Amino acid sequence: MKVAKFGGSSVASAGQFRKVAHIVLSDEQRRIIVVSAPGKRFKEDIKMTDLLIQLANKVTNGDSCDDVFTAVMERYEEIAEGLELSSEIIEKIKADLKKIIDNYKNEPERLMDALKASGEDNNAKLMAFYFNHLGHEAHYVNPKEAGIFVTDEPGNAQILPESYEKLKDLKKRTGILVIPGFFGYSKTGHIVTFPRGGSDITGSIVAAGVGAEVYENFTDVDSIYCVNPSIVDNPRKLKELTYREMRELSYSGFSVFHDEALEPVYRAGIPVCVKNTNNPEAPGTWIVAERDHKEQPIAGIASDTGFCSINISKYLMNREIGFGRKVLQILEDEGISYEHTPSGIDNMSIILRAAQLEGEKEQRIIDRIQTELNVDDIHVERNLALIMVVGEGMEQTVGVAAKATMAFAKANVNIEMINQGSSEVSMMFGVKEEAVNRAVKALYEVYF
Amino acid sequence: MKVAKFGGSSVASAGQFRKVAHIVLSDEQRRIIVVSAPGKRFKEDIKMTDLLIQLANKVTNGDSCDDVFTAVMERYEEIAEGLELSSEIIEKIKADLKKIIDNYKNEPERLMDALKASGEDNNAKLMAFYFNHLGHEAHYVNPKEAGIFVTDEPGNAQILPESYEKLKDLKKRTGILVIPGFFGYSKTGHIVTFPRGGSDITGSIVAAGVGAEVYENFTDVDSIYCVNPSIVDNPRKLKELTYREMRELSYSGFSVFHDEALEPVYRAGIPVCVKNTNNPEAPGTWIVAERDHKEQPIAGIASDTGFCSINISKYLMNREIGFGRKVLQILEDEGISYEHTPSGIDNMSIILRAAQLEGEKEQRIIDRIQTELNVDDIHVERNLALIMVVGEGMEQTVGVAAKATMAFAKANVNIEMINQGSSEVSMMFGVKEEAVNRAVKALYEVYF
Repeated sequence: MKVAKFGGSSVASAGQFRKVAHIVLSDEQRRIIVVSAPGKRFKEDIKMTDLLIQLANKVTNGDSCDDVFTAVMERYEEIAEGLELSSEIIEKIKADLKKIIDNYKNEPERLMDALKASGEDNNAKLMAFYFNHLGHEAHYVNPKEAGIFVTDEPGNAQILPESYEKLKDLKKRTGILVIPGFFGYSKTGHIVTFPRGGSDITGSIVAAGVGAEVYENFTDVDSIYCVNPSIVDNPRKLKELTYREMRELSYSGFSVFHDEALEPVYRAGIPVCVKNTNNPEAPGTWIVAERDHKEQPIAGIASDTGFCSINISKYLMNREIGFGRKVLQILEDEGISYEHTPSGIDNMSIILRAAQLEGEKEQRIIDRIQTELNVDDIHVERNLALIMVVGEGMEQTVGVAAKATMAFAKANVNIEMINQGSSEVSMMFGVKEEAVNRAVKALYEVYF
Repeated sequence: MKVAKFGGSSVASAGQFRKVAHIVLSDEQRRIIVVSAPGKRFKEDIKMTDLLIQLANKVTNGDSCDDVFTAVMERYEEIAEGLELSSEIIEKIKADLKKIIDNYKNEPERLMDALKASGEDNNAKLMAFYFNHLGHEAHYVNPKEAGIFVTDEPGNAQILPESYEKLKDLKKRTGILVIPGFFGYSKTGHIVTFPRGGSDITGSIVAAGVGAEVYENFTDVDSIYCVNPSIVDNPRKLKELTYREMRELSYSGFSVFHDEALEPVYRAGIPVCVKNTNNPEAPGTWIVAERDHKEQPIAGIASDTGFCSINISKYLMNREIGFGRKVLQILEDEGISYEHTPSGIDNMSIILRAAQLEGEKEQRIIDRIQTELNVDDIHVERNLALIMVVGEGMEQTVGVAAKATMAFAKANVNIEMINQGSSEVSMMFGVKEEAVNRAVKALYEVYF
């Protein structure tokens, strides 16, 4: 049994629905499919989810929402008409949306979650209806019925472990099962959404729950590239990478795969195949537990901007047991999460996402560290970018670091920071934001 | 005014005493001298301090100590006789030693500290007596009289800030002042020693207290080398290095200068000159606040063995605010100090001196991290060496890291760990102990 998840652009129009149906029907192992809300049909298009967020905000603010409501319905209507479906399904969707607005109009957070979730939910109903229209047995399966139970944190749901037991029952059902992505139900029966991009999470949970042979993740690219194609032209396509490599890459800038989505399949040992709905013949990229990395020790290069570092120095810092712990305690008190903490004998830096340090909070943290730890100097350095070189073959290969640093030197990029050691699959470099693309290009040149 | 400190080998014999006198008398600015206990005269010789430790242990254990007592006295007698001094001073030393043993025989810690300190103390008396014998005005100055007041931690004294005020009075005194190194007095009047090698600390404190023009540190080498001469033959001599460079180098394996000793002169901005008692014409090495580092960005390479790393991994570790803080809290509870904490997305390592992890403690720490933080994997990697490349020119120079990593690759040394970023003057590499000398040689080749 295969679980196939189709992303927003794969289910954005009637034409895309036809491609999905063709893909699903061409392999009888594709028994469970998870769908996103309709995505963009062209570059300037608005995603369904964004329309629904607008709708929720208008309802909450008491503004007139007829135009947005109509825009939402038009997307479904266009798909239904393009597929020559009867209007019955459209009426159903319309009634469903009105019911949500009516039920939750005085609960802004619940309304937001329920409307956001409706994008996936109604698209799943539409997809199941389409399969039936084509003459195939297919069932829309609501996440509650499937057994996807989550914590009650609107917009940040976490799966509850008992869900996996319940999901097993899906195997007993017949026909094609169409499950909406992106949300589950709390124990009290409320719709709660996963973090954004969370249809990948639903697919991964379902694949783990039914013990799928493979979790297919259909997108709009032939494969995962070893580096961001907006930085390097026509970069190398990856045939295979490991869960660890994918996680490091997706965390630090690779948007192909949602960062948290890998956990369920990783724990269950289910391989993932990232494929293109628009070119299903392409082999795609496999994400697996192990790969032979002799020929290609490096899997990819990721980069992300928007970091800063808090640099602290204090003479004889290293003699002070508890110094580092106290600094981290102050950050924890302020709810700050950090990326790395490179340290020297008398120095310590904390690298974090700059968006977390705002106005008052920044000053309060600096003051606390200054006063409570009596440091000699503290200052914040902004506009940092982190570059992650990721690969299973990193640890054993003398010279991986040499290649990287030579590349930086040739490209005249100063390295603000290097962190290598704990993770066996990645090496991190900190550079100024202005140099990041130059640095990534230089790294691509030496590794690929 | 210059403060000159003479290390153990510089005051190990009558011949060395003559050299010291010659050096001091050749420059009338050399008004305050600080002396160590007699050091080794030849490779297999026993240092006075070690004899005195033996003596203290024997007294404490109730063993006969006549032989050690005699060996101690013979060292002083040999010096006194060689310098043709009257026996009066030897009788004084003998009486002093007996008094210490008698006073503290039931207080092992105090006895140890007082006997250890007597090595410097009696040598200072002997030195002052010798200057008088040569017809010069010279005074032995006891640390209590000088104003060196310290915390009451036997073997680990810390200077009390009020000492600096009192030390100023030394400037008013006439003649050559001879102060024993290595110890001060607690507020309750007890002798308390600095950490071992602490005569450097006394010299530095006195130089800062009197606002010396220079703190001269006389040893038995012409200069500080850029790398350990037992690893690289005839390494380059350093003319000048900064306080920060010296501190980083001395911390990580350079034994020339005691690591904590720099602080007082660093804070007071007093330059240090490391010189050779056996070749005082050599220019020595200057330790200063700033140096022109354009020509030589790297000052030196230090290395030290005996480290280990605790490697922790946990899926989605980076999402857990407080994870790093909790790990460091456990180490703090166990009194463990660490060097560095390189981290990946799902990994964290703690690099520390392996001697701190012994039997039960190691297991307890592993168990606590495992249980309290629910990690996926934790293991300890031993036999690590750290190599520190130190230089003020490091930050601005693209290519410093490239040279290092290329050198490692050529020498076929795998880099277990790189830590660069916080300190602007050093870059740290972790390698297997077996590869450390090969690595240091390779680095020397590329930088010097």
